Amino acid sequence: MPETTQPGNGQPVLERLEEAECLRLIAPGGIGRLAFSSRYGPTIFPVNYVLFEGTIVFRTVADSHTDEDLRTGIAHAEYKVAFEIDEFDKPAREGWSVLVQGSAHHVESDSERASVLAAGVESWAGGERDLFLRVVPTRITGRRISHPPRTLS
Amino acid sequence: MPETTQPGNGQPVLERLEEAECLRLIAPGGIGRLAFSSRYGPTIFPVNYVLFEGTIVFRTVADSHTDEDLRTGIAHAEYKVAFEIDEFDKPAREGWSVLVQGSAHHVESDSERASVLAAGVESWAGGERDLFLRVVPTRITGRRISHPPRTLS
Repeated sequence: MPETTQPGNGQPVLERLEEAECLRLIAPGGIGRLAFSSRYGPTIFPVNYVLFEGTIVFRTVADSHTDEDLRTGIAHAEYKVAFEIDEFDKPAREGWSVLVQGSAHHVESDSERASVLAAGVESWAGGERDLFLRVVPTRITGRRISHPPRTLS
Repeated sequence: MPETTQPGNGQPVLERLEEAECLRLIAPGGIGRLAFSSRYGPTIFPVNYVLFEGTIVFRTVADSHTDEDLRTGIAHAEYKVAFEIDEFDKPAREGWSVLVQGSAHHVESDSERASVLAAGVESWAGGERDLFLRVVPTRITGRRISHPPRTLS
């Protein structure tokens, strides 16, 4: 059962979401936001992603700043990142967000590349985004804000 | 003039946005996403913000993990954070994003608190979000993806 804070008539309700519910919400793919410590300090940018075999897959430009910043420089040691997906209904002031924390895995083997290619992730930005990255989750959390109907008093 | 990459008929165009254009885009306020290094590694979550006197203002819960994680523990040394705002037109596969990098300033004096209260930032989550934080920008960057009309050949 989700933990619910602040129940009440017409008051916002903030729920923590279980991992299974988070995965269900992010399964359709779309736009998510990647955050990590870059050469300029904490950084966030949006990417097109798909959820594939329990990981977040997106494309970027090989040998770019992003590619380099997401490497620890140590073989098999992966960089820690966060990935956030959300959806809001602005007029209703409601919505949910899911936070995936984990490591940034560079897809380098031909066999893994073939499998993520089949997952069909595309970038709106187009161009030579031929590096595939995966966020391998270590922690998945989410929350939802909703407004139950106000009762008449 | 914005720097334009990948021009072409019907191909996506990725532009870097100048700071003045970024500030114009984020001026209406709304939802943005804060990223920082938390006790669980890189973290992102959405908040309701307003742009006030050139800074991003949002509310959180005093003495929460977020409040604590955003303090360096050193007086007057502020924690580095990133704040991202974006807007997308999914059917058109177009949109823009703005990244504000800077320091997390806790509003603690009564006079500053009165001035940011007047800016009128509210949190959808409601509750006791009586700590005001400001992101004081050191770097503002943005990009836009658009699709010029395809020409007939």
